[in-house]
Amino acid sequence: MAVVSLPDQHWIAELDDVSGVELVHWDLKGPPPRADIGLVVPPYMGNPDRLSRLSELPGLQVVQLVTAGYEHAVPHLPPGVVLANGAGIHDTSTAELALALTLASQRRLPDFVRAQERGEWLRAAGAPSLADRRVLLVGYGSVGRSIVSRLNAFEAQVTAVASRARAGDDLVERVHGVDELPGLLPDAEIVVLIVPLTDSTRGLVDAEFLAALPDDALVVNVARGGVVDTDALLAECESGRLRAALDVTDPEPLPTDHPLWRAPGVLISPHVGGASTAFEPRALRFLRRELAAYADGSGVHHVVHRA
Amino acid sequence: MAVVSLPDQHWIAELDDVSGVELVHWDLKGPPPRADIGLVVPPYMGNPDRLSRLSELPGLQVVQLVTAGYEHAVPHLPPGVVLANGAGIHDTSTAELALALTLASQRRLPDFVRAQERGEWLRAAGAPSLADRRVLLVGYGSVGRSIVSRLNAFEAQVTAVASRARAGDDLVERVHGVDELPGLLPDAEIVVLIVPLTDSTRGLVDAEFLAALPDDALVVNVARGGVVDTDALLAECESGRLRAALDVTDPEPLPTDHPLWRAPGVLISPHVGGASTAFEPRALRFLRRELAAYADGSGVHHVVHRA
Repeated sequence: MAVVSLPDQHWIAELDDVSGVELVHWDLKGPPPRADIGLVVPPYMGNPDRLSRLSELPGLQVVQLVTAGYEHAVPHLPPGVVLANGAGIHDTSTAELALALTLASQRRLPDFVRAQERGEWLRAAGAPSLADRRVLLVGYGSVGRSIVSRLNAFEAQVTAVASRARAGDDLVERVHGVDELPGLLPDAEIVVLIVPLTDSTRGLVDAEFLAALPDDALVVNVARGGVVDTDALLAECESGRLRAALDVTDPEPLPTDHPLWRAPGVLISPHVGGASTAFEPRALRFLRRELAAYADGSGVHHVVHRA
Repeated sequence: MAVVSLPDQHWIAELDDVSGVELVHWDLKGPPPRADIGLVVPPYMGNPDRLSRLSELPGLQVVQLVTAGYEHAVPHLPPGVVLANGAGIHDTSTAELALALTLASQRRLPDFVRAQERGEWLRAAGAPSLADRRVLLVGYGSVGRSIVSRLNAFEAQVTAVASRARAGDDLVERVHGVDELPGLLPDAEIVVLIVPLTDSTRGLVDAEFLAALPDDALVVNVARGGVVDTDALLAECESGRLRAALDVTDPEPLPTDHPLWRAPGVLISPHVGGASTAFEPRALRFLRRELAAYADGSGVHHVVHRA
């Protein structure tokens, strides 16, 4: 019987009917409860340094994350161990927040929240709808697709961009390559960023990228703060030319005295894309599939690294 | 050639290729520019008293509104004249705002806007997603359908209620009757109101309705303020038991000293459901169809009253 550790007692109760695995509780805060654990699911949040305890397991085969990001785990992976990420678990929650930020910015909800503090019924002229807007989605992976399926329901005109151009699918006619951005940016009324942070995406949204956008465009970042050059974005927002809705920032957390907090047309949420009640049921459905695949010897599906 | 008055010069330029009609400009601020106008499109906003000028047109046949509501026009309708409303024009804009309010409330954007004022990166626990929520939509007309098509994209579990029970359609399995509400409310985590204000819907959401909802439920009103008993809602929100997101209030506008402004868990927008850039292109597409139908003698489609 394959031994699997889970970071949450509640998850053990939910998954104890998966056949072929014995589930034990381990949140990595102390030493492993037994030596024969073959697959470890580390806690969703938590100090990455605790992953150094993985080296205490001589029979470890797989580290199964419930996050999409995995860079933090790579340095702690013992030789011969496979690392798998939680691909898809956070799509729903992150796409939902991307739409929440976009809709709130377009329909002026931050202005209304501030007016509410003053007890003021704002006489507001027509706000820009999301409907009819030309939206450029940069990063067409599984979260990107979840965002597009929601944007389509709002009658937005979506153009998708990925690292390389490819054929379309049920949601978009075609996928443009990132090399086509210079020709696409001047038409983009809203840009939604959901690329992974890599050497090629760090600082992708720099002064030149932003200068190519039309006046009053909205930049939505639900990727990673480092994808955007913060100073360049700040300059465009402080001048009132562009707007921004950011779930991630660089630096993060944003220091209290950072001017981005008070720039006009900027809405900031504190990196809560994945942090909603949508997480747990999707994590449990995902783990149910992956633990079964591990137990029957076919192997987990989302391997991202082998040490 | 049928003579039609439009309230906006820009609309005349946009619609001057509709055959069989002669378009003239009239915003009802002064007397009619000529006596042979057969169809009048009054301004979208504006003082309803100006509609009394309609009696100056001896050949008037149709008053074509671009609003869904029409009660304000009925008293000014000369004998024999048909009144038609702008059914569907505002569906997109209103449904979009309903989702913006719902998503912002669920994912705590008002808290983040207030934290932003203080330069504070809130350490927020998982917010309730819209995904997986049981949403009760009360009022299944054309705006209601537009709301449901968006809710479905967010993986919400939607139950639709209309004045009478009927079979379902492409969006919902069945439509429940308003008499079934007592059995439906205890399961509703979110209630979205989009009924017309009539004698039977005034005060529909009273203390008894609200008491039947589970703790922490969200009440979203994009209908009319009078559908909700404000004092009953205020009591439930001030106690922290229910939350609300309101685009309409009673009284409206809400006076500066009204306690609803400061009740916890309440988000208020100043009746901007229809006020977005989504309005004009949809109004023009609608008028193009209706003016053609008027010109060819088949008649406008959305007659709501005959004087």
